[in-house]
Amino acid sequence: MLDRCITDVSLSKAEYQRLVPELQARLFDLEQMLLEARIPTIFVFEGWAGTAKARTIATLTRRLDPRGFRVYPITPPRTYEQQYPWLYRFWLKIPSYGQMTFFDRSWYRELLAAYTTDGDQDRWRTRCEDAVVFERQLADDGAFILKFWLHITKKQQARRFKKLLSDPLQSWRVTDEDRWQHRHYKRVYRVVEEMLVRTDTAFAPWQIVPAADKYYARLYILQTIVGALESRLGITAIDRGASIDDSGEALRRYNLSIRIPVLGGATNTDTVRPSPSAEEAGHQLTTTPMSNGSVVVTVPVVSPTYAASPLQRVDLSLRLDDETYHRELKRLQAKLYLLGLQVYHQKRPVVIVFEGWDAAGKGGAIQRLTAELDPRAYIVHAIAAPTGDDKARHYLYRFWRRLPPRGQFAVFDRSWYGRVLVERVEGFARPEEWRRAYAEINQFERQLVDFGTIIAKFWLHISPEEQLRRFEQRQNVPYKAWKLTDEDWRNREKWPAYLAAVDEMLLRTSTPFAPWTIVEAEDKKFARIKVLRTAVDVLESELGVVKLE
Amino acid sequence: MLDRCITDVSLSKAEYQRLVPELQARLFDLEQMLLEARIPTIFVFEGWAGTAKARTIATLTRRLDPRGFRVYPITPPRTYEQQYPWLYRFWLKIPSYGQMTFFDRSWYRELLAAYTTDGDQDRWRTRCEDAVVFERQLADDGAFILKFWLHITKKQQARRFKKLLSDPLQSWRVTDEDRWQHRHYKRVYRVVEEMLVRTDTAFAPWQIVPAADKYYARLYILQTIVGALESRLGITAIDRGASIDDSGEALRRYNLSIRIPVLGGATNTDTVRPSPSAEEAGHQLTTTPMSNGSVVVTVPVVSPTYAASPLQRVDLSLRLDDETYHRELKRLQAKLYLLGLQVYHQKRPVVIVFEGWDAAGKGGAIQRLTAELDPRAYIVHAIAAPTGDDKARHYLYRFWRRLPPRGQFAVFDRSWYGRVLVERVEGFARPEEWRRAYAEINQFERQLVDFGTIIAKFWLHISPEEQLRRFEQRQNVPYKAWKLTDEDWRNREKWPAYLAAVDEMLLRTSTPFAPWTIVEAEDKKFARIKVLRTAVDVLESELGVVKLE
Repeated sequence: MLDRCITDVSLSKAEYQRLVPELQARLFDLEQMLLEARIPTIFVFEGWAGTAKARTIATLTRRLDPRGFRVYPITPPRTYEQQYPWLYRFWLKIPSYGQMTFFDRSWYRELLAAYTTDGDQDRWRTRCEDAVVFERQLADDGAFILKFWLHITKKQQARRFKKLLSDPLQSWRVTDEDRWQHRHYKRVYRVVEEMLVRTDTAFAPWQIVPAADKYYARLYILQTIVGALESRLGITAIDRGASIDDSGEALRRYNLSIRIPVLGGATNTDTVRPSPSAEEAGHQLTTTPMSNGSVVVTVPVVSPTYAASPLQRVDLSLRLDDETYHRELKRLQAKLYLLGLQVYHQKRPVVIVFEGWDAAGKGGAIQRLTAELDPRAYIVHAIAAPTGDDKARHYLYRFWRRLPPRGQFAVFDRSWYGRVLVERVEGFARPEEWRRAYAEINQFERQLVDFGTIIAKFWLHISPEEQLRRFEQRQNVPYKAWKLTDEDWRNREKWPAYLAAVDEMLLRTSTPFAPWTIVEAEDKKFARIKVLRTAVDVLESELGVVKLE
Repeated sequence: MLDRCITDVSLSKAEYQRLVPELQARLFDLEQMLLEARIPTIFVFEGWAGTAKARTIATLTRRLDPRGFRVYPITPPRTYEQQYPWLYRFWLKIPSYGQMTFFDRSWYRELLAAYTTDGDQDRWRTRCEDAVVFERQLADDGAFILKFWLHITKKQQARRFKKLLSDPLQSWRVTDEDRWQHRHYKRVYRVVEEMLVRTDTAFAPWQIVPAADKYYARLYILQTIVGALESRLGITAIDRGASIDDSGEALRRYNLSIRIPVLGGATNTDTVRPSPSAEEAGHQLTTTPMSNGSVVVTVPVVSPTYAASPLQRVDLSLRLDDETYHRELKRLQAKLYLLGLQVYHQKRPVVIVFEGWDAAGKGGAIQRLTAELDPRAYIVHAIAAPTGDDKARHYLYRFWRRLPPRGQFAVFDRSWYGRVLVERVEGFARPEEWRRAYAEINQFERQLVDFGTIIAKFWLHISPEEQLRRFEQRQNVPYKAWKLTDEDWRNREKWPAYLAAVDEMLLRTSTPFAPWTIVEAEDKKFARIKVLRTAVDVLESELGVVKLE
């Protein structure tokens, strides 16, 4: 999940100061409403040392009624706490019905310690399960849980430490434990990644927060919490609209849209996301007619946050010249042929997933991938809307039954990810269904990997402009026209909604055992070579083949 | 769970034949309704070899429309099935929406094989998780799942094999695998027990079926399935009452009450259970006024099934003479004192739970248990209705915070089991809440045991007659009168409902790591000595103390 986090976003102080008071006021309102609704809330703040978690929490609590919340700083367990099962001290801190709790570090601190210091795999796994059980029991009892991981790179952490150490009044903040973490950043990173995947659930989702810029991080968290709570309390844009008056103040207060895609259990489906064109419009108001006839007024609040979308950062200028393309294609296809034989001999199943925008070039890439493989060794599944048996069963059924046997390739031209893409955006799956699906898909892929399956997943990315060019080209070339359907045009209309869905998919399902590869597909030649090269790399590494150039 | 199964119940063939056709007809009706409601159902049949699972399934399917169901006999995986992840072949067999599936053996066959043959603990644990994930994904998608374990003792299995082997037409039924299982009955038993606990969930509960008598087993299963499905479809006793006419036939068809407590996700709260006094009344009709003014007519259908309640089998005639009592009391208390020191030295926490009928003698037993312990070493928690902080949080909070530290005893006079006893019977917890609680409690106790906690749990059992005697005695003795409240009398009215709740509690929460001890408490002296002796045994075995008589 961390590999999908864009770490260099920032927000100006002026912008931050302009926006925060309104969000704090809304959080104050929510505090009262939660109390009345008797909903206990738990906000967990974890992250790298040097991400100023305590001061982030202060931003949240500053305007709250102190009777309504508790802040718990979590240190390593004290002697008396070690006399009890490890979750004891956290059970003692669960909120009463209606209370808000903020954990500055949490049970995850102990989970990480269990791994990085003990190195006891079995104990670590048991504790991950304990944590999930703990959260599930509280969530089943009505608790609302959000977990934040404040993320910075090793370089950013170094800069942060340097700054703190240079100030005699601040240097004490950098502890021995922090230095240890910095020295072992890579190792801790891998453990964190595994921990996030094991404990990311629909009832207690993780939010990864780019935390190098404090203003950005705090606003992101404030917006996420406010949006998620309003959603939980059933405050829709419409309800907020009821308070609209002409003063403009209430308008801003109640109609700020949550521009950051609020993730997991937190997305408010009634929240209107600005379209990319609103991007340029700056802070101009946009109005969106709702299906029930009312109008939602949207103020895009944080210009730079949109940039936290990993997809927005994809370098679409990457190109490949003809000569390199043909040379590389030949070389990689030859390798794939040999790797295909190894797959057969080693009896490993291979699953290759292609997802991407309409007309992003999935078909062409698949064709190049399989061209030199033994035709008996692979099968390509083109996945459209389910029909027949597939439609009458659990959505994973159609993929289970299309799994490759040992020694074979199965290439999926679209896949189970439809659940969190088209089914989410078009409303074919209910919110609780697609939110549950991230964990279901990770469990599914983990089972495949446990069996020995080699998995590669590609997202083919193009710009909306390039898509339009390709659509028009298809329309104009008679033998390509069949490829273009009304559905393609309809999907194109919903680009922003798809963008949010893709971003969340990439974040929540990029796991250590089945990571995503984003393919810059504006240039088809570049895309095809990247796909083939990645496939070759994955296969070589999984099959233990000696690399010969 | 298996230790709570009464294995020597039986039903006459005549009774069986009288009752089955009506239940089969209801199941046929349900098949149509499930199809219409598009609810897929999965019935898993596992159990010891020689329990005639296939013929049991035949009883269920005989009158069904063959288009509506599938029966899957599960053998060890074939060569081609071994080319896929282990759950692949079961995913291929999931029912379509509205279809019924009957699995004659299932994924649990492979789970057991993974343990008993591989002995690979890690793989076994992963597969248990895989099975739970599989069932959870299907249940989340709307599937209805019930799992039956057909249980016989080793002796009963021997008799069964002998009978089959003596018949040349039947002897082929006893396979080498069956013989292996019989030889290793004890070892398999332990694995089954662990498997049942790990995979018993609110969304896919296990039902333990006494299977020595085929008529009893089949009727039990038929009743359980019909009752559970009617409950799932929201068919209450009242709905069925709508079809009552004077012919008596429809009356029997629609008003047979499910006398066997239907367990787990399956209990129909509208089903009226006959009171113990109805026991003697034989097949006489009983009428019960419902809160909404209508009357439910109940035909007690299966006389002997009630005997499957382990509580009904408790030998309440057990007595202890004064002399033995005083000698044993002294001896055991002296031992407990020494064991208490060991607990302190070995730094093990100890949790002792007392549950039982009102006036069963919990207080007296606790007093004898703690009398000679160092007063600093133990604390007794009397658990009544929650108040204050405890009332405003998850029900387990009040017990987490009362856990003993290392080296101390905590004795609970009533406990977290209130969730599945008084809260269930009095309606303080919703059905989904107390059904979920069995797994929550097992998870809780497993976490305690993982930490090193020693747990003993006692159910003090008396007859309703003895309770009445004690109530009256309390009423008449001035210094005891305070012990008797209106609530005690109210609870007494609900004896049958409590009986069902206690039976299910004992079944679902008697785990290998925290088993229940049922104490015959009709005679206080006998009860106290049994409690002390059990406590001594548990402590000696857990602390590794050499036993010196």
